[in-house]
Amino acid sequence: MPSWSGGRRGGEAMTGIPGRVRIVEVGPRDGLQNEREVLPTEAKLAWIAKIADAGFTEIETGSFVRPEAVPQLADSEEIFRMLAPRAGVRYTALVPNMRGMERALLCGVRSIAVFTAASETFNRKNTNASIAQSFERFAPVLERARAEGVRARGYVSTAFYCPYEGRVTAERAVEVIVRLMDMGCEEVSVGDTIGMAVPSDLASLLSRLGDRLDLSRIALHFHDTRGTALANVYAALLAGIAVFDSSAGGLGGCPYAPGATGNLATEDLVYLLHGLGVETGVNLGRLVEATRVVEEALGRPLPSKAYQAIRLAGLPRAEA
Amino acid sequence: MPSWSGGRRGGEAMTGIPGRVRIVEVGPRDGLQNEREVLPTEAKLAWIAKIADAGFTEIETGSFVRPEAVPQLADSEEIFRMLAPRAGVRYTALVPNMRGMERALLCGVRSIAVFTAASETFNRKNTNASIAQSFERFAPVLERARAEGVRARGYVSTAFYCPYEGRVTAERAVEVIVRLMDMGCEEVSVGDTIGMAVPSDLASLLSRLGDRLDLSRIALHFHDTRGTALANVYAALLAGIAVFDSSAGGLGGCPYAPGATGNLATEDLVYLLHGLGVETGVNLGRLVEATRVVEEALGRPLPSKAYQAIRLAGLPRAEA
Repeated sequence: MPSWSGGRRGGEAMTGIPGRVRIVEVGPRDGLQNEREVLPTEAKLAWIAKIADAGFTEIETGSFVRPEAVPQLADSEEIFRMLAPRAGVRYTALVPNMRGMERALLCGVRSIAVFTAASETFNRKNTNASIAQSFERFAPVLERARAEGVRARGYVSTAFYCPYEGRVTAERAVEVIVRLMDMGCEEVSVGDTIGMAVPSDLASLLSRLGDRLDLSRIALHFHDTRGTALANVYAALLAGIAVFDSSAGGLGGCPYAPGATGNLATEDLVYLLHGLGVETGVNLGRLVEATRVVEEALGRPLPSKAYQAIRLAGLPRAEA
Repeated sequence: MPSWSGGRRGGEAMTGIPGRVRIVEVGPRDGLQNEREVLPTEAKLAWIAKIADAGFTEIETGSFVRPEAVPQLADSEEIFRMLAPRAGVRYTALVPNMRGMERALLCGVRSIAVFTAASETFNRKNTNASIAQSFERFAPVLERARAEGVRARGYVSTAFYCPYEGRVTAERAVEVIVRLMDMGCEEVSVGDTIGMAVPSDLASLLSRLGDRLDLSRIALHFHDTRGTALANVYAALLAGIAVFDSSAGGLGGCPYAPGATGNLATEDLVYLLHGLGVETGVNLGRLVEATRVVEEALGRPLPSKAYQAIRLAGLPRAEA
């Protein structure tokens, strides 16, 4: 039996990085939205329950865009009505506008996410609105959230690179991020939507952000389209970032399609973090069990490397 | 047309990391050795020529183990005889013992690599010899190399984790690495053979190594089995390492198989390095063309994420 006990696994965190990280599991929304297959509601609920069993404290669970626009998530109302509340677990829903907000509130949503982009062209193609218009749409949503005591998160897509405009300046991204916070978002998730960023891109954004706000309110949302997601996570940890979005199994479409696909896989992220001695509260073995459920439901191998390696070679000793 | 010019791509290197990195392309040996398919000699030669066209200065091209042991590389003699010499390109061959050395010298090999491991059990299973015995086998090989003016490189497998023994201590790995250098290896490539390492594992090894030798003589050889290879590369760059092994297309078997598979893909490595402003001398577009040759010959999509993303979405502007 191999002994893994000489390593840092299970020991103290590497110096210079946060001792604890919060992971926002986005598979049931961002992941499924980018899959061709539409999962049955029952399968989703079983999967979400297993994700919660694995120790996640925030799960992005549905979307209140028009059901015709995203058929994969057309059952979000039903999902939120049937979700068993759990102490310490927050279920978040994407809300594009007041109409979506009304629907969300009616089925008991207590945590919402609004979304825009740092690139004008991307935002227009994605939401049929300018960035300014998307802020106009959010204003009443975020006001209502505050009035109802609902927690709000913001998403900024294409914060580093845009498929249409190319490089997005850090100044531009900072402006959008700060504005979302000023309007009431408790946390903003900053996205490398097309998976082009490398650590130096990150450094320039984070240093500017740090001058304007408390970095503990920033989450990073990487796509692994070109394999750089975990290098970016490591660079972000060194800069003190302690919240990351990821998708179980790397769910979210073929990693090779251009555009908004190739979500960082949660298993890869957890493997790295635990290896560095960073606590996440996630049980990696249970996460792998949860991902099996959705992999079987989808009927194709999911792209997470750590997930597949664990299926074949087992868990690292400290996780078993 | 997107503009990528605002970024660091094509500009100066990020501070604190080397401005230039040398990549040792191991696909034609380490990559092919771990593929089921045996490529025809002509296809290999065409591929190797295209790798050289892409700007690599060192290509691991063959192996002089018993041809029956590795049928994928049984044509190494022919390959070396037919290789067109190129100024500035070094073709390296794996040599296990004096018999292999004689064969290598006869077909004109001028750069060899010897290999052992930091884990006793792995070395026994891999080479049917203890670590001490492998050093006995190398001694005359390295002596002969010196006498003939042949350059020698060393490989240390399982320098971080062993599939049989678990965690390998940094002390153990350092001992084997230093001994290879003392015996005449100009450079030692330190391998995370089963792809379990994370940056903290690296830090502890490199700090100990730095006390004993010049880190410019160290190459790192990562496997991406659990998705951590580029995070490790980034951590290694921060520690000053400037030589990395990688395999075109991620060639080297299914990334999901346990064991010595899942080589870091050269395209992913080059994408990261160029993004950080690090020069490699490699033309990424030409590398992708080279990899297409072997992908077509093997008849299956290769696992490199950057390769697949470039095939679909094109090169970053600065590379086009």
